[in-house]
Amino acid sequence: MNRLFMILACIGLPLSIIGSIFHWSAVIMFGIYCLTIIALAGFIGRATESLAIVLGPRIGGLLNATFGNAVELIISIFSLKAGLVSIVLASLTGSVLGNLLLVGGLSFFIGGLKYKRQSFSKHEAQHNAGLLIFSVVVAFVIPEVFTTTMNDQDTMFLSVGISIILILLYLAALLFKFVTHRGVYQSNNKQKENHEEEVPEWSKLKAIIILALSTIAVAYVSEHLVSTFNEVGETFGWSELFIGVIIVAIVGNAAEHASAVMMAYKNKMDVAVEIVVGSTLQVAMFVLPILVLLSLLFTTSMPLVFTWPELISMVTAVLLMIMLSNDGDSNWFDGLALLAAYIIMGLGFYFI
Amino acid sequence: MNRLFMILACIGLPLSIIGSIFHWSAVIMFGIYCLTIIALAGFIGRATESLAIVLGPRIGGLLNATFGNAVELIISIFSLKAGLVSIVLASLTGSVLGNLLLVGGLSFFIGGLKYKRQSFSKHEAQHNAGLLIFSVVVAFVIPEVFTTTMNDQDTMFLSVGISIILILLYLAALLFKFVTHRGVYQSNNKQKENHEEEVPEWSKLKAIIILALSTIAVAYVSEHLVSTFNEVGETFGWSELFIGVIIVAIVGNAAEHASAVMMAYKNKMDVAVEIVVGSTLQVAMFVLPILVLLSLLFTTSMPLVFTWPELISMVTAVLLMIMLSNDGDSNWFDGLALLAAYIIMGLGFYFI
Amino acid sequence: MNRLFMILACIGLPLSIIGSIFHWSAVIMFGIYCLTIIALAGFIGRATESLAIVLGPRIGGLLNATFGNAVELIISIFSLKAGLVSIVLASLTGSVLGNLLLVGGLSFFIGGLKYKRQSFSKHEAQHNAGLLIFSVVVAFVIPEVFTTTMNDQDTMFLSVGISIILILLYLAALLFKFVTHRGVYQSNNKQKENHEEEVPEWSKLKAIIILALSTIAVAYVSEHLVSTFNEVGETFGWSELFIGVIIVAIVGNAAEHASAVMMAYKNKMDVAVEIVVGSTLQVAMFVLPILVLLSLLFTTSMPLVFTWPELISMVTAVLLMIMLSNDGDSNWFDGLALLAAYIIMGLGFYFI
Repeated sequence: MNRLFMILACIGLPLSIIGSIFHWSAVIMFGIYCLTIIALAGFIGRATESLAIVLGPRIGGLLNATFGNAVELIISIFSLKAGLVSIVLASLTGSVLGNLLLVGGLSFFIGGLKYKRQSFSKHEAQHNAGLLIFSVVVAFVIPEVFTTTMNDQDTMFLSVGISIILILLYLAALLFKFVTHRGVYQSNNKQKENHEEEVPEWSKLKAIIILALSTIAVAYVSEHLVSTFNEVGETFGWSELFIGVIIVAIVGNAAEHASAVMMAYKNKMDVAVEIVVGSTLQVAMFVLPILVLLSLLFTTSMPLVFTWPELISMVTAVLLMIMLSNDGDSNWFDGLALLAAYIIMGLGFYFI
Repeated sequence: MNRLFMILACIGLPLSIIGSIFHWSAVIMFGIYCLTIIALAGFIGRATESLAIVLGPRIGGLLNATFGNAVELIISIFSLKAGLVSIVLASLTGSVLGNLLLVGGLSFFIGGLKYKRQSFSKHEAQHNAGLLIFSVVVAFVIPEVFTTTMNDQDTMFLSVGISIILILLYLAALLFKFVTHRGVYQSNNKQKENHEEEVPEWSKLKAIIILALSTIAVAYVSEHLVSTFNEVGETFGWSELFIGVIIVAIVGNAAEHASAVMMAYKNKMDVAVEIVVGSTLQVAMFVLPILVLLSLLFTTSMPLVFTWPELISMVTAVLLMIMLSNDGDSNWFDGLALLAAYIIMGLGFYFI
Repeated sequence: MNRLFMILACIGLPLSIIGSIFHWSAVIMFGIYCLTIIALAGFIGRATESLAIVLGPRIGGLLNATFGNAVELIISIFSLKAGLVSIVLASLTGSVLGNLLLVGGLSFFIGGLKYKRQSFSKHEAQHNAGLLIFSVVVAFVIPEVFTTTMNDQDTMFLSVGISIILILLYLAALLFKFVTHRGVYQSNNKQKENHEEEVPEWSKLKAIIILALSTIAVAYVSEHLVSTFNEVGETFGWSELFIGVIIVAIVGNAAEHASAVMMAYKNKMDVAVEIVVGSTLQVAMFVLPILVLLSLLFTTSMPLVFTWPELISMVTAVLLMIMLSNDGDSNWFDGLALLAAYIIMGLGFYFI
């Protein structure tokens, strides 16, 4: 896996530069950019994990929270700069759907093929359920319904206000998890188990250098990726919504996807669920509101208002995930149901 | 009960034939047809149960899944043939509402009058909750929201795609329940208890003959029943929606209704809940998608798109049922709340 | 606390009368009226509690159910008389949101600052969750969706029908709680604990006199309060919706708010949750339907149809509260999430 990412990055990065200089066809470049980003995201993920172990759980948690979705943040910033507000919202929708349904589904399904029943922390699942409802069902639904008759200025005021609240509550959730209630809901066995595993892959310095270089490279490739969307969409007959929700979301999250499924296969369901839901919450409560605030610096500002299909997809995905995971128990069928929901929504975004 | 059905069938069937030959008034014939179908459905139910016991739980489960809602399937096919797409969707809505709220409510209420607290499998309830959310909240809501701006052809493509996924997931759910995870979530006591009861009422041959004859008779009566809808609606001032949601749904499910309530009265809540929710899932994940696919053979094809009142009624009914049953515990008040919800929706469909 | 209410009432009541005679500015009078009502509501609350203890839990429960939201009922009746239907619906929305999110949030937050984990009856929480879904998600959502194409007369018929069902089910819920299932879901320890505390603050006669006098005084002040809405709204640039949802709701519930938070601070979470959710259910299942029925006596009748922002706010607030409280366990973060949701909705109603 890691070797594959190494090769992909070493081939993809030069090709990305050469191709963009010689103006290769957008479709080919789109493919090269996507694969390169997937590989680079793998490095960012590994560097962040190493650093998180070295720096201890508190700062590590914060680091994960910030860099965990760095790729998406970077792609989105370049999209915002290009004025592609609707693609940003679509790709964040896709990130939520992809994490909950595709990655969650694959983790439950593949883990479930090996183990008859897999269990994870019920308390953690219920805590996460509350946050998912807060962010998707409250913070995303309210502006949608309230802004139908609002002018653009008030819509942005409301969006900014909600974004600030989302970020503050996200920081409070980190405080709750890593400081005030660290281990409160965990059994003693679990805590020991976790301690044994924490051996960093890379040294502190190496991790920082790799993190910095990969992030710069992702930024470079992302900027070029965004410029191919238009032509690729026309070539394949894909709408902006489909590119954003399905393609960009898969590319931006591929590395995380792989590690969640691997954890499920090793029966470490607590980690798998943490990646799946934690990453969703990061996108909804941190990446998205940061982008809303950043968009004020660009010519086109981005309100916190999704299209109805995007919003309803996220709400139903959240409800399904909560219903299937609330009992702290998963099996192959739970996974299949999540995957089936992803396919249904994918079909919807394709035909729309 | 069984004797009553016997008498009803023996009187109703000849009257149905005589009446349709001599062109009796539509309102009278509507009454005769309804009572005859209720009686015949009772025979189909008993024959299916006998066969299910003889053929073992796996094939029996499949049989129940196919014939359990045979009456509704047959009525719906004749309605589709007559181009009454909206009545089919309405009657399936009514079937979902009737099962969850009316039958579920009566079972909880009447069982609860006799027993202070009744309990059933919490795991089963949560598994069912996931399927209800999947089918009603994901698979029905998504096409509703996505097709508002779609042309008819894309709407049908999306409907067919979702229907196929629903059927496949339904088959997977049967595989999960009867093969890979049979008994995994059950306590040992329960399994023994179940074994004792399984004595078929009729022999294999007798059951097959009764099943075949009743099904043919239901088909005959259903075809004529459908032709009376128009006149009956005008006479009583009932909308198509009201006939479909309330009347047809009660007729098509009467036999199941009776047996669920009887099981609750005997404190066999696991069986009662299985009938109530199992039948709902059958309609949503098997009967309805089959009808969408079959409709392609007729002149008017049926998309998976309900009216908003139908959809919202189903979604709220599902949420209420999940909330009341998720703790694996029922009482008379839970039943009353479900019945009150049914009356509220009935009023809504009457006034609409 | 009690002394503060005493002083407030003794100053506020004379000022209310003097001010209204000498036509002081509406904004000043609005402030005086609000503070006076808050103080008087405190007396009503204490008198009701004393009476409830003297008269025993059954009649006491009924009494609490009737007088618990007396202030809101009185303000609403005067608003209805003045034809301010939309302010009544808004203030009831605000009452639901204020109870669930503001009071619930403050209770969980402040209690959670003192205690790491606070727990309350899981069974009670799940019973309440069913009632919240029934009233807000079924009984309020159904008329909203069904009446979009309905004429005014049918809308009122449907509203009256649903209101009657709500009241009947509310009475049934009291019967269930205080008669047929009293103590069924409670542990023995709890029952003892409760018995010890029940010492009334005031004698029966004193409580009745205070209750009567305070109620008359609230009625007087409320009538004048309603007449200031128009001018206050213009002065501060507040919409009718904002005045109703945020201002009136806080004033009408301030006394209850204080006692819920105090209970949480004393780690009596069962009582705090009972006040928060019990009061919400009272408003939704008793006060509101009574007002719909009473409105038939006035010139402008009030249908059970909220604006979409009001409805969606209530639905999402209910879902969030259920998700956070369903595990029978609260902490400071749960409280903060509820408060954050309240602020988001408050922003929405301010900008709308």
